Amino acid sequence: MEQRVSCITLGVRDLDRSAAFYRALGWSPREDDLDDIFFFAAGGLVVALWDRGSLAEDSCVTDSAGWGGITLAHNVRSPHEVDAVLAQAEAAGATLGRSGAPTEWGGYSGVFLDPDGHPWEVAHNPHWTLHHDGSISLAPP
Amino acid sequence: MEQRVSCITLGVRDLDRSAAFYRALGWSPREDDLDDIFFFAAGGLVVALWDRGSLAEDSCVTDSAGWGGITLAHNVRSPHEVDAVLAQAEAAGATLGRSGAPTEWGGYSGVFLDPDGHPWEVAHNPHWTLHHDGSISLAPP
Repeated sequence: MEQRVSCITLGVRDLDRSAAFYRALGWSPREDDLDDIFFFAAGGLVVALWDRGSLAEDSCVTDSAGWGGITLAHNVRSPHEVDAVLAQAEAAGATLGRSGAPTEWGGYSGVFLDPDGHPWEVAHNPHWTLHHDGSISLAPP
Repeated sequence: MEQRVSCITLGVRDLDRSAAFYRALGWSPREDDLDDIFFFAAGGLVVALWDRGSLAEDSCVTDSAGWGGITLAHNVRSPHEVDAVLAQAEAAGATLGRSGAPTEWGGYSGVFLDPDGHPWEVAHNPHWTLHHDGSISLAPP
């Protein structure tokens, strides 16, 4: 199994609400979207929004109806940009988990929760390299 | 907010068990790993393994203790390769969710669950392009 991820599917309770939220963050789904799923090209992988019940069935799991042990992060180029993305997410309807602040590991981050409660850490990590194309390397710049 | 993901953190109950599982799939963490977290360079993003309780606290959420609405997918180049990855995962200790089989959307996929129950769909999708570097485009080859 190659060391990579092709798609992250977020199970959602209201597809239109979630699509509107991610559009408000500046994201654009593929234009020829199907009726019941949205696909976003996100660097070298795909982020999908799909009905949570359908996703649970397709994933062969029982839905706990809460958070299930996976958190996504979106790294940016400065602490200031962390604050800006958190403010943008709040304006789009996100719940603020924690405001931007220095972290124990020497960076700066905050957390927002999307309309379904999926957490996104927004982080500036000076120990990793964020390239111009948005990709990440596990080494200092 | 740019349309991309920097890191996917999987909350795990036994860090050594999970690290051994992903190593058995052929994955290699960064060599200078910290004691309490593993980082895998996975294409342009990072997959991390971290204590589930710590992740819940850091993510400002309550842990439902089950599946929480996020499923990862690993796309491969043929139906045969789907079966091979599922077999490799089972040999590494995964639970098989569903065997490889043709899908409604014209592809071929199966699902395995990692030691913490995080589902991975292993898929061949002839409608998307899987590039040599492992990145995905939302268009036919």
